[in-house]
Amino acid sequence: MPTDFDALDRADPLTDVAARFEPGHAGVLYFDANSIGAMPITARERIERVLDEWRELRRGGWAESDWLDAPLRLGDKLAPIIGARAGEIAVGDSTSVNLFKALGAALRLRPGRTRIVTEIGSFPTDLYAAQALARLFPGVEIVYAREGEDPRTLVDARCAALYLSHVDYRSARRHDLAALSAHAHTHGALSVWDLSHSAGANPIDLVGAAADFAVGCGYKYLCGGPGAPGYIRIAAHLQQACDPILAGWMGHADKFAFAPDYAPAPGIARQIVGTPAVIANAVFEAALDVWRAVDLAAAFAKHARLGDLALKSIAQATAAAGVSIASPRAAGRRGGFVAIGHAQAKAIVAALEDHGVIASYRPPDVIRFGLSPLYHRYRDIGALVERLARIVNERLWDRPQYLQARTT
Amino acid sequence: MPTDFDALDRADPLTDVAARFEPGHAGVLYFDANSIGAMPITARERIERVLDEWRELRRGGWAESDWLDAPLRLGDKLAPIIGARAGEIAVGDSTSVNLFKALGAALRLRPGRTRIVTEIGSFPTDLYAAQALARLFPGVEIVYAREGEDPRTLVDARCAALYLSHVDYRSARRHDLAALSAHAHTHGALSVWDLSHSAGANPIDLVGAAADFAVGCGYKYLCGGPGAPGYIRIAAHLQQACDPILAGWMGHADKFAFAPDYAPAPGIARQIVGTPAVIANAVFEAALDVWRAVDLAAAFAKHARLGDLALKSIAQATAAAGVSIASPRAAGRRGGFVAIGHAQAKAIVAALEDHGVIASYRPPDVIRFGLSPLYHRYRDIGALVERLARIVNERLWDRPQYLQARTT
Repeated sequence: MPTDFDALDRADPLTDVAARFEPGHAGVLYFDANSIGAMPITARERIERVLDEWRELRRGGWAESDWLDAPLRLGDKLAPIIGARAGEIAVGDSTSVNLFKALGAALRLRPGRTRIVTEIGSFPTDLYAAQALARLFPGVEIVYAREGEDPRTLVDARCAALYLSHVDYRSARRHDLAALSAHAHTHGALSVWDLSHSAGANPIDLVGAAADFAVGCGYKYLCGGPGAPGYIRIAAHLQQACDPILAGWMGHADKFAFAPDYAPAPGIARQIVGTPAVIANAVFEAALDVWRAVDLAAAFAKHARLGDLALKSIAQATAAAGVSIASPRAAGRRGGFVAIGHAQAKAIVAALEDHGVIASYRPPDVIRFGLSPLYHRYRDIGALVERLARIVNERLWDRPQYLQARTT
Repeated sequence: MPTDFDALDRADPLTDVAARFEPGHAGVLYFDANSIGAMPITARERIERVLDEWRELRRGGWAESDWLDAPLRLGDKLAPIIGARAGEIAVGDSTSVNLFKALGAALRLRPGRTRIVTEIGSFPTDLYAAQALARLFPGVEIVYAREGEDPRTLVDARCAALYLSHVDYRSARRHDLAALSAHAHTHGALSVWDLSHSAGANPIDLVGAAADFAVGCGYKYLCGGPGAPGYIRIAAHLQQACDPILAGWMGHADKFAFAPDYAPAPGIARQIVGTPAVIANAVFEAALDVWRAVDLAAAFAKHARLGDLALKSIAQATAAAGVSIASPRAAGRRGGFVAIGHAQAKAIVAALEDHGVIASYRPPDVIRFGLSPLYHRYRDIGALVERLARIVNERLWDRPQYLQARTT
């Protein structure tokens, strides 16, 4: 019996949430939430408000606005989505800069330890941040788990931090936060997580998992806007011991005293560096305020079901066309997107776009479909599978206009 | 003979430029350009365009927009304002993070040298960045020129970098970029400048001055919006030798190859770290496009004259009221604002606000008036002096409502 996608939509408790996002072009299916989430309708009015404040500030200065509080205020709004406590998150800077801050703080908490354990398949910017840091900590080396190797096997008493992308950016394989954090702890190491491909899509319980550090990106599933600020989360009990690797006036204990010597602010505030990105924060806050009205458990359950249905339906509809399922079948082992493999992945992504489906390609052979629990409908999965099946079963990717995208 | 401010305005070749900024409240004089510049009228439409692109991106992904090129495109638009070459500037990250990048790169270019020379009166975030870096370079210490001491006297063969705020954030004293950079070079040291309080107000010729590194803030005189991205400028001949201290995917030589090992992009692009702040960049670009239509020499000459008039007129009008002139009298020695001193500075700033003048206070006794060559008119100076004179001469600051702001 074919899946009744419309019936699933009728029963979806989140069906009203989609109306809080810009719908995009009629008939186009947008499955690139892993690159950029949809635009909350309130983003425009939030920006208008900030622009009015900017104009008004010609009367009053920074002191009259709530601009300077944004890093912690947004952090508190983000906290429930990733299972953190209020006061554990500072929003600001790019994800890459936050990776540097988090891993740097972790290394300082474990002086004398000489290893960062990570995976060669981590998202590249995660690796680059670690490589930049290792150069600043003489004697510290990075130990890479090979593709498919369990990074736990590399953790021992030399390990300062187990430093991982929560979700593999190619396959969507999602690590077990609690199990890996616990394993790190048994060897006295800290856990540092990049949540960019899971926050806002999967249930995350940083406190319950006893994860130490986490960073992530605001512009994917969280829908914080193009180039939205990233964030850093540090477990409450570690914050006072954390010695920031980047220091700026907004993380000072008394920032308007203009003291010549740095003294860290209490708690997570010391991880703030420069002046907040006011307009970007306003847009991100519009998205976080949409999230506040969402039943998180229902959202993450819906996300899992969207992915299950997508993988099952794709497998059925494209069985003989060279499509492999690249993601774990179990929703609890997957991140925010589902991935399939095909030798002509790049050409298929181009053909999908011409058929009104936006997906993303990652070398060498991966097609990713990012799924948002907030604005995707079950019928979108039905339409996706139909269009994809036509392209691969009828070899529409094998047309002249896709020649450049072809791999062979 | 009293100054005829209206006549000066009639003769001002930049009089039309003011119309490109939001006028603010009628009758209110906004002299806080040193904290946040005025809003270009085009900022709203630029943001609308980005929001439309965001919505449209549900059809196309990052690849179809000009978002990823913004750091270098904006850098090239900024270059003429600070006397840099095209290809020398990357826009992005906060000023504080850019200070870290610039000074870090300078230290790596001078291995074996053990000193950073700066001033104890540098803007605090400049000092905090240096302090954070010194900890990461064992054996490197910071040597501080005391208040009033010439930092040149501390530069010797041990000095890696002469690292200075171009303008003192309290007095507006502006350093001679060329002379101090040349002095650093005679000892084999590099010069690293924070231009936050001069860029967009004063003539700066980084190339002519042979300055090595510069960073600055987008939201003051450049009018890039609240929390606008900062920037880093590195002299062209040094870029390939620069070894970035922060590494991220957007600074990689082949960012979409997703290689596990970091390899720096050519030139200034390697200083880019994370994903660009797209919306903030759009606002900053609106301001930079206003700048492109401005005769820079005329603008900086006007700025100097505004400041000269302000100081001269304030001194005349407030002679017996305890006001001192805290800034250099010579425009060529001043930064973007003019500063006066008064024992009741904080209460006077509060009274000024009630009289429709927005200024800023810095402990212990400084009042700053930030002057924009783009939107201030000479008659604004006339009105400022009139209101300030009334407040100090009639001791209006000594009223009950300013009691909390009083220092004695």
